[in-house]
Amino acid sequence: MRIDVECIPCFARQALLTVRCATTDDAIQLSVMKEVGRLIADVSPDMCPPELAEQIYGVISALSGNEDPYKAEKHRANKLVLDLEPEFRDVLSKSDDALFSCVKLAISGNSIDLGITSDYGDIGVKAREVLAASLGVDDYASFRRSLEGAAHVLVVGDNTGEIVFDRMLIEQMRKVSDCRFTYMVRGRPVINDGTAEDAVAVGIDRLATIADTGDGAPGLVLSQCSEEAMNLFMTADMVISKGQGNYEALSDAPRDVFFLLLAKCDVVSRELDTTLGAAVLKHHVAS
Amino acid sequence: MRIDVECIPCFARQALLTVRCATTDDAIQLSVMKEVGRLIADVSPDMCPPELAEQIYGVISALSGNEDPYKAEKHRANKLVLDLEPEFRDVLSKSDDALFSCVKLAISGNSIDLGITSDYGDIGVKAREVLAASLGVDDYASFRRSLEGAAHVLVVGDNTGEIVFDRMLIEQMRKVSDCRFTYMVRGRPVINDGTAEDAVAVGIDRLATIADTGDGAPGLVLSQCSEEAMNLFMTADMVISKGQGNYEALSDAPRDVFFLLLAKCDVVSRELDTTLGAAVLKHHVAS
Repeated sequence: MRIDVECIPCFARQALLTVRCATTDDAIQLSVMKEVGRLIADVSPDMCPPELAEQIYGVISALSGNEDPYKAEKHRANKLVLDLEPEFRDVLSKSDDALFSCVKLAISGNSIDLGITSDYGDIGVKAREVLAASLGVDDYASFRRSLEGAAHVLVVGDNTGEIVFDRMLIEQMRKVSDCRFTYMVRGRPVINDGTAEDAVAVGIDRLATIADTGDGAPGLVLSQCSEEAMNLFMTADMVISKGQGNYEALSDAPRDVFFLLLAKCDVVSRELDTTLGAAVLKHHVAS
Repeated sequence: MRIDVECIPCFARQALLTVRCATTDDAIQLSVMKEVGRLIADVSPDMCPPELAEQIYGVISALSGNEDPYKAEKHRANKLVLDLEPEFRDVLSKSDDALFSCVKLAISGNSIDLGITSDYGDIGVKAREVLAASLGVDDYASFRRSLEGAAHVLVVGDNTGEIVFDRMLIEQMRKVSDCRFTYMVRGRPVINDGTAEDAVAVGIDRLATIADTGDGAPGLVLSQCSEEAMNLFMTADMVISKGQGNYEALSDAPRDVFFLLLAKCDVVSRELDTTLGAAVLKHHVAS
């Protein structure tokens, strides 16, 4: 998905939120925003949004000296969802289709996105809401079929907090299929996205091999990720892409992908032909 | 008042709203946003917000070829308030202090600001709300005293629609003082601010001499306005500055000014030490 003109003010807003989190120094905050202006001036219409995001977060880290402004927020989000786990484990145990319910849970976790808002609300409330509603795009039948036939599934993770629900999803998927799993995180801290440290902290390493994208974009950008990440992406039997950033990077990918996300902005909801805020399970078929 | 780091995403948002109003051509919209990035990169911390606004609206006009994107909106706003005039004329006739009520009306009209939002809501509702409430900053006693002693009052106008209430305010002021009035508009179209054409359309020319700033900033920027505008500003016995843009430009002015505005953003409400959205009549005393 290419960057839209609408993304530009949104990135300026994100940059302000993040630089304020990274430093209280007014002069550095202004320098960062001016550098963000320069990045906007040089935007290419062929870029996808996570490419610009990586540049912006890179400027924030470099000028503020803070390489992980959302570190405390990331730990907080993981803890929040770990605390909710018993409640939702109980919900799954009573569900007619625990895999489908867990897919919805994993989608609801995508609300924990500090690129979109500094206050993502009550994740328990959001999860219950998504569980009770229909999906805005529902390719679950195809998702389940693909899972049953796969020997190796790659899950490309997104935000902290959300990654706890992803671990629960991998557990559910293992009940349906005896395939092996790889869980891919970001190569460097960016926004509140999960890194290898987070994946281990929430126990994903007990169920899946942990890999990373090899770069710091908040989405798996194929033109700049590591060769290893590219190989994993192209050779897995099934790819599950979590969250909006990965959708923005992979919506035109040269292979089948199952996208699980909340459509949190107008640009993405238009692209997916669904409503703003919709929970989405989309089967992208490579053309 | 100097530009704040918070103003930068707000300007990017305003630029997007306005360029979409100016042209439906996607490529031009992107070119404008990239140029806005360049202006942000070159921001000086000594600028006041209306200086950057003038540059941004200049880029939009130049690249889109549309010199007055909000022309239809401006006519609509004038008509909206002209249609409300009989109702509020009746309110004033029953008021214990018609001048004070009319000051509040003139402040409420500052909600008609397309730099802040593309939907400013129901102006009748807003006006009734401001009339019923206390002012967030209330220097009315000093305002009235100054008016009674003045021979020449300069009113620096702001938005269309709002200028109808300004005309009603000049009528009320003429009942208290027999001084002469000058009403200053923008020298060129910018956002939905009033120009000489609007001032004449709503009948201000029957009560006041019409002057203009000599430039296209959405605020009277003393360092770049015409010599005539500067002379008027410095020599009038009393200056009434309408709206947020003029406040941003004149908050440190080298003379006394009465500011009538709604504090529509956090930066301005902090500067005025009042709450967001407050109606303000502030007597600035030159230091």
